[in-house]
Amino acid sequence: MSGHLDDDYLSAPAVAACFNAEAMSRHMLAFEAALAAVGGELGVIPPAAVSVIARCADRFVPDYLALREATVAASNPAIPLVAALTAAVAAEDPEAARYVHWGATSQDVMDTATMLAARAAGVHLERELERVCALLSALADRHRATLLAARTLAQLAGPTTFGLRAAGWLAGLAGAQARLRALLPRLPVQCGGACGTLAAFGDAGAEVPARLAGRLGLAPSPPWHTERGMVRELAATLADICAAAGKVGSDLVLMMQREVGELREAAAPGRGGSSALPHKRNPVAAIAVVACARRAPGELATVFSCFDQWHERAAGAWHAETPALVSLAKLTGGSLVQLVRALDGLEVDVAAMRRHLDADGGVAMSEAVSTALAPALGRAAAQALVRRAAAQAHDSSRPFGEVLAEYDAVRDHLGVDGLADALDPGAFLGAADHFVAQALARAGAPSPDLQRRDRAEEDDDG
Amino acid sequence: MSGHLDDDYLSAPAVAACFNAEAMSRHMLAFEAALAAVGGELGVIPPAAVSVIARCADRFVPDYLALREATVAASNPAIPLVAALTAAVAAEDPEAARYVHWGATSQDVMDTATMLAARAAGVHLERELERVCALLSALADRHRATLLAARTLAQLAGPTTFGLRAAGWLAGLAGAQARLRALLPRLPVQCGGACGTLAAFGDAGAEVPARLAGRLGLAPSPPWHTERGMVRELAATLADICAAAGKVGSDLVLMMQREVGELREAAAPGRGGSSALPHKRNPVAAIAVVACARRAPGELATVFSCFDQWHERAAGAWHAETPALVSLAKLTGGSLVQLVRALDGLEVDVAAMRRHLDADGGVAMSEAVSTALAPALGRAAAQALVRRAAAQAHDSSRPFGEVLAEYDAVRDHLGVDGLADALDPGAFLGAADHFVAQALARAGAPSPDLQRRDRAEEDDDG
Amino acid sequence: MSGHLDDDYLSAPAVAACFNAEAMSRHMLAFEAALAAVGGELGVIPPAAVSVIARCADRFVPDYLALREATVAASNPAIPLVAALTAAVAAEDPEAARYVHWGATSQDVMDTATMLAARAAGVHLERELERVCALLSALADRHRATLLAARTLAQLAGPTTFGLRAAGWLAGLAGAQARLRALLPRLPVQCGGACGTLAAFGDAGAEVPARLAGRLGLAPSPPWHTERGMVRELAATLADICAAAGKVGSDLVLMMQREVGELREAAAPGRGGSSALPHKRNPVAAIAVVACARRAPGELATVFSCFDQWHERAAGAWHAETPALVSLAKLTGGSLVQLVRALDGLEVDVAAMRRHLDADGGVAMSEAVSTALAPALGRAAAQALVRRAAAQAHDSSRPFGEVLAEYDAVRDHLGVDGLADALDPGAFLGAADHFVAQALARAGAPSPDLQRRDRAEEDDDG
Amino acid sequence: MSGHLDDDYLSAPAVAACFNAEAMSRHMLAFEAALAAVGGELGVIPPAAVSVIARCADRFVPDYLALREATVAASNPAIPLVAALTAAVAAEDPEAARYVHWGATSQDVMDTATMLAARAAGVHLERELERVCALLSALADRHRATLLAARTLAQLAGPTTFGLRAAGWLAGLAGAQARLRALLPRLPVQCGGACGTLAAFGDAGAEVPARLAGRLGLAPSPPWHTERGMVRELAATLADICAAAGKVGSDLVLMMQREVGELREAAAPGRGGSSALPHKRNPVAAIAVVACARRAPGELATVFSCFDQWHERAAGAWHAETPALVSLAKLTGGSLVQLVRALDGLEVDVAAMRRHLDADGGVAMSEAVSTALAPALGRAAAQALVRRAAAQAHDSSRPFGEVLAEYDAVRDHLGVDGLADALDPGAFLGAADHFVAQALARAGAPSPDLQRRDRAEEDDDG
Repeated sequence: MSGHLDDDYLSAPAVAACFNAEAMSRHMLAFEAALAAVGGELGVIPPAAVSVIARCADRFVPDYLALREATVAASNPAIPLVAALTAAVAAEDPEAARYVHWGATSQDVMDTATMLAARAAGVHLERELERVCALLSALADRHRATLLAARTLAQLAGPTTFGLRAAGWLAGLAGAQARLRALLPRLPVQCGGACGTLAAFGDAGAEVPARLAGRLGLAPSPPWHTERGMVRELAATLADICAAAGKVGSDLVLMMQREVGELREAAAPGRGGSSALPHKRNPVAAIAVVACARRAPGELATVFSCFDQWHERAAGAWHAETPALVSLAKLTGGSLVQLVRALDGLEVDVAAMRRHLDADGGVAMSEAVSTALAPALGRAAAQALVRRAAAQAHDSSRPFGEVLAEYDAVRDHLGVDGLADALDPGAFLGAADHFVAQALARAGAPSPDLQRRDRAEEDDDG
Repeated sequence: MSGHLDDDYLSAPAVAACFNAEAMSRHMLAFEAALAAVGGELGVIPPAAVSVIARCADRFVPDYLALREATVAASNPAIPLVAALTAAVAAEDPEAARYVHWGATSQDVMDTATMLAARAAGVHLERELERVCALLSALADRHRATLLAARTLAQLAGPTTFGLRAAGWLAGLAGAQARLRALLPRLPVQCGGACGTLAAFGDAGAEVPARLAGRLGLAPSPPWHTERGMVRELAATLADICAAAGKVGSDLVLMMQREVGELREAAAPGRGGSSALPHKRNPVAAIAVVACARRAPGELATVFSCFDQWHERAAGAWHAETPALVSLAKLTGGSLVQLVRALDGLEVDVAAMRRHLDADGGVAMSEAVSTALAPALGRAAAQALVRRAAAQAHDSSRPFGEVLAEYDAVRDHLGVDGLADALDPGAFLGAADHFVAQALARAGAPSPDLQRRDRAEEDDDG
Repeated sequence: MSGHLDDDYLSAPAVAACFNAEAMSRHMLAFEAALAAVGGELGVIPPAAVSVIARCADRFVPDYLALREATVAASNPAIPLVAALTAAVAAEDPEAARYVHWGATSQDVMDTATMLAARAAGVHLERELERVCALLSALADRHRATLLAARTLAQLAGPTTFGLRAAGWLAGLAGAQARLRALLPRLPVQCGGACGTLAAFGDAGAEVPARLAGRLGLAPSPPWHTERGMVRELAATLADICAAAGKVGSDLVLMMQREVGELREAAAPGRGGSSALPHKRNPVAAIAVVACARRAPGELATVFSCFDQWHERAAGAWHAETPALVSLAKLTGGSLVQLVRALDGLEVDVAAMRRHLDADGGVAMSEAVSTALAPALGRAAAQALVRRAAAQAHDSSRPFGEVLAEYDAVRDHLGVDGLADALDPGAFLGAADHFVAQALARAGAPSPDLQRRDRAEEDDDG
Repeated sequence: MSGHLDDDYLSAPAVAACFNAEAMSRHMLAFEAALAAVGGELGVIPPAAVSVIARCADRFVPDYLALREATVAASNPAIPLVAALTAAVAAEDPEAARYVHWGATSQDVMDTATMLAARAAGVHLERELERVCALLSALADRHRATLLAARTLAQLAGPTTFGLRAAGWLAGLAGAQARLRALLPRLPVQCGGACGTLAAFGDAGAEVPARLAGRLGLAPSPPWHTERGMVRELAATLADICAAAGKVGSDLVLMMQREVGELREAAAPGRGGSSALPHKRNPVAAIAVVACARRAPGELATVFSCFDQWHERAAGAWHAETPALVSLAKLTGGSLVQLVRALDGLEVDVAAMRRHLDADGGVAMSEAVSTALAPALGRAAAQALVRRAAAQAHDSSRPFGEVLAEYDAVRDHLGVDGLADALDPGAFLGAADHFVAQALARAGAPSPDLQRRDRAEEDDDG
């Protein structure tokens, strides 16, 4: 079994590993151990049995291939794994084997294992998000004063800063990070037994969820076999990370277009080459980020379309929901790993940014000029004048400022200096710097480590 | 223009009205009035102009048909509406007309109007959610002791209560309601001007979002033209309501199947009839709830697939996102209105519920019997015995209990009374009642019972 | 009821009208008239009743608002419409009223009406597709020799022609058109009666579908109440049109970026302006095409997720499928109308295309140079040489050709003339012209050139 | 690397194997061999080089793990595989190594390999579809006379046959099979070179696609790097199979509900058991079919959302499209394998089917009775009478027929015998048998019965 060649491409191996056969088996066995321990605490399982089950669950290594095959027949891996564990326990102590899986149902094991895996994946994702946010914070901070042509509907709009662009990226990722952070501690344990009543525990059933949660480090919850709000919330949180990263990825690709040339991914051997074109340096990491963001919505829709969780246990909806959720986690991991790769060592061409802003003799400053003229002419008349001047400049291939200077209204109301001021991009940035500061503050203080690194780079420059 | 015959079917007229031409125009005009007022406060617009603009924006009634046509050409309705408002202001005071829309861009107007409309829709949705939760709370409370056959994978599982089934429904809707409640106050104002810098406000730009938010009752926010985390969160919250309602709808349809017959929608003239079959009473409201839940994931995927909001303003992604969001809001409204209709006057056939639970001589109690036998026989052996007895009962069409009574192991370890106890569904409900109480308490209707238990638990602790 | 301001934006009024209340009512009444006629032919309905029903169905104008309200209660419009028609017939001839809707069920009426509406919409879509294909054919033909820089992964690749780019667009739309053309005549009539057996027609039932289909101009079919393969095929065909158009739209937007400037949408009053930026000309039509393509996949997923059409009639799946299909048809209409608008009068800047191709001293010709060198040096060594030269040219800001000319291997193996040849984009177009001719021929506009070549190929064969 | 425990659950190992590392590498190497051969034919590559390349490509076994890692860096596996193949060829003949991959680009290799894999997968899918259709044909044929209660909107409707139900399932699968069969031979080769012009082949470029297609057994096509209509068609065809299978799966689950009990999956060790409930036999295969159908629409949406294939090669859209397509193929395989498993040995409880049809004293015959009464009373009055009788029967728990017999109108117009006839389900089946015969014939197994009828119809015509 060699897998697929692209198994790691839109995924992160570390995140994928959280859900692989070993990890899921380990989580399921941990559930069984904790369940036995809780049964012991509540007087439902004899102490001797508890310790044997715990020991076996801790040591047991299933035959993964056999388990994989049995999963197809049983429609979930919990049934064959529990059977195998029971056999292992029985080999040591037939008495104890009576209490394996006591009071639980397959979905209890599976859902809890999935939540444990999601939490482990979440830790990886948080770490990657921190790296992404640190890289973006540094970028936003370093380029607070770097002038950039804002583009709206893919057209030249007016001046902004590359710092503000990066701060917008940061805001998206930091928001997604905040959602993930708030969610992870709420991932719940699942334990309801066959009918969601924990009937096998009798009166003690009500205490099971909290005790089990405590042992496994998950949040306590009444059974949620068919109430999947938390799964949907987790799925939406993951898809949101992909989308926020995807926004950055798509901007990177746009800015790396040869005709724009404002950014370039760091070069590395085996990266970004072309099998046919020797001169190319492709934005491969940014493209992978975009690809992950494209796959996420379909998986998210699958999770939400599994709403019809019949009665006390779904007949298909649960079975489709889990693989979609796992796929989302892997895509999210892939998205962040590739975004780190795209941002780390990103080459910024400040001169190219300025060149585009100055294109066509400063037509990007049209709003500034019309704003300056508006108090005198009115907004509509000022815009009309500017629109006319822009068209003239374009048709005659003359600089916008030169054409403007020939208008009486401009001379009268702005004068030479006023026009020069209105055409200065650096003087028409409004609250850009304020918004950058706000985004940096919200994303948390840049780490000392990062600041050191920045200072060192400045020294190099100086 | 007669619209479509099914325009109100998977929608709620009250929610749809929040986004119609009148409402959106009103919100856009409110934005322009507030923008002028803030411009006045910040000294960017003369006080006289502010009051004229505010007055005109308040009174202005656009030609909706013309606006609709102009929207196709302009690609958004803000441009023609601002032009029309400017003309109206100019008719009264040409000076004031200079300051209409000062410093803003189309997306500022549109996004803010959409958020205002979403908030208004949210109020309707909250009200419907309250009605749904009240109906579900009453149902869960009334049927705490009503025995019901739990079904897993569409098969008879064991005993539960209809109260717990309804409490699960309640938990889903109450969770969705909590998410909506937490989200609505965070819906943000949008104002960044053409390039997201609020450049036309100069140094005062940083103050614009909070002041504007205060006037419009939205949350302050830096510009989020291309940072759509909040839109995704809103979309996911709406889709989650549809899904939670859809779970109830699908259970209702299943329980209303003729062969199950545990529930029936209230009868009403013109409702649930068939054009061909005179005897039928169709679960039409529940079906509509299911239909809404089926449409929501596609719209949600659309919202998330609009991640690539280029540069400072998207070239298509924003344009596709808003209609998908509005569609989701309408589906959510439809979902809740129809769920209220399905639940209001719901006929519960308690006897039918009991009949299914007792089917085949109590085979639903198999887990109870094997649980009772397990301490003596071991879980595996007990299950094997029970499985054999169930098969014998099925093959010979004899009651399960009668067959069980013939086993030595049953006689020895349980005896007649022990077997009778094990076959009593009411005695094998575990924490069902506790979970009902918990759901009622979380949904905001603390039951006396739960309060008692909580107090007892505190006493235990102390 | 003013509708939404953007109701016509991502839609085509002519296509939307195919599904509105008037049109759908007309189709449903046509079904009832044809059904009565078939009943008459088969001797199930008295001739007198047939003519009264036909006359009434022809004249009857329902109260659309009442119908819309009743649809919510009944869960489909067929029930109240049939009731209203029956009343109208009864007013004229109570005997005839006995036979209204004889043998049919609501879904028969609704599905058939939807297919009639889809066919009508299909006619509009075909017409728009013809306009699009004509515009694209003209573009491809006119620019067969217009050099353009091919871009792969958003990077400069090498030379192609704008004609070939347009031919690729054409191939997509012509393929989608062919699929639509093949599908429309296969849209089936629906008639199975309450249980899909046409039981009310007795032995004559088997003849109903074909006779009904003949009268309504649809394809005959056994009942397909829960076999929705044709609906899925129709939905996929519509979504494919949106996608093929979306490819063109996204290329247009990319080529209209200010930094690329190779294309520009035709200017028109009220089109492409900005509410804040006087100099802008936004690619609004192309953006609308992209927005339609973004919304289509979600609706398509909804149609396919409605697979679980229970038993003989779905409980929710059918109810969600139809509105998603109608939405797809409207998006397809919007997509094509806006694409026509984007292409009609499209301004092509041939000089800009050439300028980008020549950028950096012809680095776009790197594959040509390495191909020319490969026979002598081997592909890998040739590519390495070219890669080195490209980097040198980039770092020293010198023309690529000038740097290349300094290499011994280049001088030895190519010489001055050979290098000049290798750097000539017009000489490295391979089969570009052939592919343009092929696309034109397939799209129905066989170019003289292709005919010549085809004949030559035949000669070769013979 | 142990993979995931559920890797084979919603997949078919044989189909998954078509896309694994070995298979895809083999396809890519086959492409390179064929490309060299075509280059040789066209005089672009020396014959000696062709044979070395062909031999190496045939024998070369890549290091899959290294390839998988390199894929992440390069963003596709073609680049590292071509590099490795070139090295292998160079080791044998440095001259030949110059011509490896001559004129092609990564996407040529990848897309062609994907089409080759899709065709191989298609062969497996066709075989499974044949098995499914054979099982369904047998079922439909065997149960042509087995009475079954039709259900509409999950309510008892009237009589049909299980044969017709199965014929409907068959029609869906046979339709999907026909679409697949028509599509597979049209899967195209991809070869356009870096810019889609096949420039490296000079004038011979136009001949490359057809020659390459001939060697690889694919359909010839101009380059379709960014024209993905065929990929969308393939994806829709696969998703359609999942949906058609899913319809069967969902009906199976419904009919296997304990309260319905009309069907049961065959029992087998390790199948359908429950980890908690000893008496259960879960419809696990049917559930897996449903789960596959639920995942397919999300993947389909992803494929269609990748419409924006920029310029001559996408920047993300292609990269997300391929894995979604592969996922669809695997889901389709899983769907069919599990459907075969669900149908093979399916236990049909004919008595249970009849029991449900007779429930409530034959109320399912209400349409038959009202149809019988309609000629005398009119359709509306007849339906009203029947509706009243049904309600009375329900309220008084008396048989429907008994209540009907007390009505004067029934006695007058039908009499005892007429009423008995109207209440006989076997006499109210309309064209059910005809539709079964039609479905069998269309699925390729013309039943003798149909042939007779067809002959009779011919006689009538003549």
